[in-house]
Amino acid sequence: MSELTDLAYAQKLDAEDPLAHFREQFVINDPDLIYLDGNSLGRLPKKSGRLAQDLIERQWGERLISGWNEGWIELQAQIGGKIGQLIGADADEVIVADSTSINLFKLALAAVNYNDGRSKIVTDDLNFPSDLYILHGVARLARRPLQVQIVPSDGIHGPVEALTQAIDEDTALVALSHTVFKSSYTYDMTAVTQLAQDAGALMLWDMSHSVGSIPANLHAANAPLAVGCTYKYLNGGPGSPAFLYVQRKWQAKLGNPITGWMGHENMFEFALDYQRDAGLRHFLTGTPPILSIALIEPGMNLLLDAGMDALRAKSVRQTSYLIDLWREWLAPLGFRLNSPVETAVRGSHVSLGHDDGWRISQALINEMRVIPDFRKPDNIRLGIAAIYTRYTDIHEAMSRLRRVMDEKLYERYSLVENVVT
Amino acid sequence: MSELTDLAYAQKLDAEDPLAHFREQFVINDPDLIYLDGNSLGRLPKKSGRLAQDLIERQWGERLISGWNEGWIELQAQIGGKIGQLIGADADEVIVADSTSINLFKLALAAVNYNDGRSKIVTDDLNFPSDLYILHGVARLARRPLQVQIVPSDGIHGPVEALTQAIDEDTALVALSHTVFKSSYTYDMTAVTQLAQDAGALMLWDMSHSVGSIPANLHAANAPLAVGCTYKYLNGGPGSPAFLYVQRKWQAKLGNPITGWMGHENMFEFALDYQRDAGLRHFLTGTPPILSIALIEPGMNLLLDAGMDALRAKSVRQTSYLIDLWREWLAPLGFRLNSPVETAVRGSHVSLGHDDGWRISQALINEMRVIPDFRKPDNIRLGIAAIYTRYTDIHEAMSRLRRVMDEKLYERYSLVENVVT
Repeated sequence: MSELTDLAYAQKLDAEDPLAHFREQFVINDPDLIYLDGNSLGRLPKKSGRLAQDLIERQWGERLISGWNEGWIELQAQIGGKIGQLIGADADEVIVADSTSINLFKLALAAVNYNDGRSKIVTDDLNFPSDLYILHGVARLARRPLQVQIVPSDGIHGPVEALTQAIDEDTALVALSHTVFKSSYTYDMTAVTQLAQDAGALMLWDMSHSVGSIPANLHAANAPLAVGCTYKYLNGGPGSPAFLYVQRKWQAKLGNPITGWMGHENMFEFALDYQRDAGLRHFLTGTPPILSIALIEPGMNLLLDAGMDALRAKSVRQTSYLIDLWREWLAPLGFRLNSPVETAVRGSHVSLGHDDGWRISQALINEMRVIPDFRKPDNIRLGIAAIYTRYTDIHEAMSRLRRVMDEKLYERYSLVENVVT
Repeated sequence: MSELTDLAYAQKLDAEDPLAHFREQFVINDPDLIYLDGNSLGRLPKKSGRLAQDLIERQWGERLISGWNEGWIELQAQIGGKIGQLIGADADEVIVADSTSINLFKLALAAVNYNDGRSKIVTDDLNFPSDLYILHGVARLARRPLQVQIVPSDGIHGPVEALTQAIDEDTALVALSHTVFKSSYTYDMTAVTQLAQDAGALMLWDMSHSVGSIPANLHAANAPLAVGCTYKYLNGGPGSPAFLYVQRKWQAKLGNPITGWMGHENMFEFALDYQRDAGLRHFLTGTPPILSIALIEPGMNLLLDAGMDALRAKSVRQTSYLIDLWREWLAPLGFRLNSPVETAVRGSHVSLGHDDGWRISQALINEMRVIPDFRKPDNIRLGIAAIYTRYTDIHEAMSRLRRVMDEKLYERYSLVENVVT
């Protein structure tokens, strides 16, 4: 039997992988490039290329305005409904709209306006910065003094104990990333939602880094609110619009603060008065960017075909394998594991910390053709998209990372960060 | 010399049209279809089809995350700058983002928060309904009682006199459509901006129906704020994102209420604290939908090549020609002109009113292959996109409309509206 560090070991895992054939559904023209950034921008599904051609040439070019009656107006709900299948929500509880930040603004402001006797929003310092900026903006707009309490963590693990203390009868809203963007720590959605609920606070999950990688169940967690992104593990394309989820029982109680025509109960009446849609659609605002929305569907269909449980099983095995290789090869070279060791609280990316992390990531990209990304201060993020990542990709990427260190290839790179990764 | 109603007259105008060759830059596969809805969704430029293929297959499929460093992150400002050339603004005063309604929300709330000693937003009943819904939402979020005063009109013409009365020292914001969506009445931007300025109110123009059809000059008007849409006369594609304009001197004074990472002075720091960008970018919020944004550019380039003055001259001549044919052929059949007669205050679409307007528009579409749209109660809107509409298209469309009436083809259609037009 081969050693864990042998290429043969990875090859055997690939050969046994029941999801291996899904890789063929993606455009991968460059066999030498190892892409471990699907947690930032997912790969192009082959069907998306064909759909784009139909969208542009036939739907827009030939059907013109008729496109709205021939499917466009339904796309946000249709794709939202499919996202619901990935996150344990019903079809009429999820809709595609705007960006994650805009959706977070809508739901967070709706929540604090509902819970209007309370003076606090609770979050943590692992949350995505844009979420924190949005929450501060929401606090400024509330018609009462409202504090954003950012519970500190150890930088890797969700500060569950401290959150338990912080969430109290003054808490209007608890807003957290389900899987956090740096360490990939993943909260127990059910337990934390329960904490919020017990205190009478509304819980709002940002699922940007978990949707499509972790089989969350919003219903089982009795979670009222969530938002998330579609361009990471859902493979929707660059900047593809986000989604929002509102549990059915909350849809009538909460109001969208950005009241636009797409949220009107009968938008084509063009009435002067706003009458909100009775269901989730009242959280819509303006005209949706059809091309960027329609292209979410092919990648998501692949996830639905593969099944979230199978994807999660593979993802756990792959991130564990990556961590095993880190332990064997990279820990001795000064790399720290900046992600949880415990699989139950780890998402689908692994962050390796190194004092020269920025330069190492640049050398990886430019010399070794391995694409991770970098997040300050020291995190080289390695994203595993189980739908198209092979075990041999992980083996090869970690081998190349070793070579960067052995040959000190990073030393030629600037200490100063100068590009987006 | 031919009569105005002769086909030969239209053919002569086409032959003399210096912009006629721009039509070849658009995909027009169906010579029998007459598309007069470019004011709702512009046609597909040929270059957009080619650009889409590059965006999908090369930029997303092959360049993957590197796309952000290779142009995507600049697209919003780059295309915004070009829109600036169409509306008399500098490149650093216009940026593409979100939807028109979201942008209106941001700028209107910023304006009333700035003018925080005043108790009124003034608009009119010709404004696009979504704009009114947004303004009401903004009023609810203000930290003081704020009234939305909707000045009534005659249904066609901007109520300039009544607005002059309404705009006073209690007015925080005046928000109007530059060209209104039903009648195409077009305000004198300079005069009305001056009214607002004299009262100490901020002026916010919605240019959705004027951008790309009227050579507005925001600088000459000393206008502080504007928003607008890119999927109508700019030919950006279905639901392509909108733009916002903030005059340079107002950029530091006003704050975006939806503070997201794209508005941070250094978003890739991922800092916990929000530090807004010093310029216009602080009005950005979340990740932009790249495919839908990038495809705005080819259509806009065609407008820049043609020149707004030449486009406006042709548009005026074409809408006047359409009105001449209405007078000859359709006024006797019960059609009313629901647009201004005076060219100076008319945009690039013409609304014809008829008691059977809904059924007539359905017959036009289904029997006659002419695509207008319909806006309650009685408006058949005929949009002229001078960049690709021919005089013979107008002649033929009006001839077919006559046939609908002569042969009573509309009688087979339901009195009840049942689809989006």
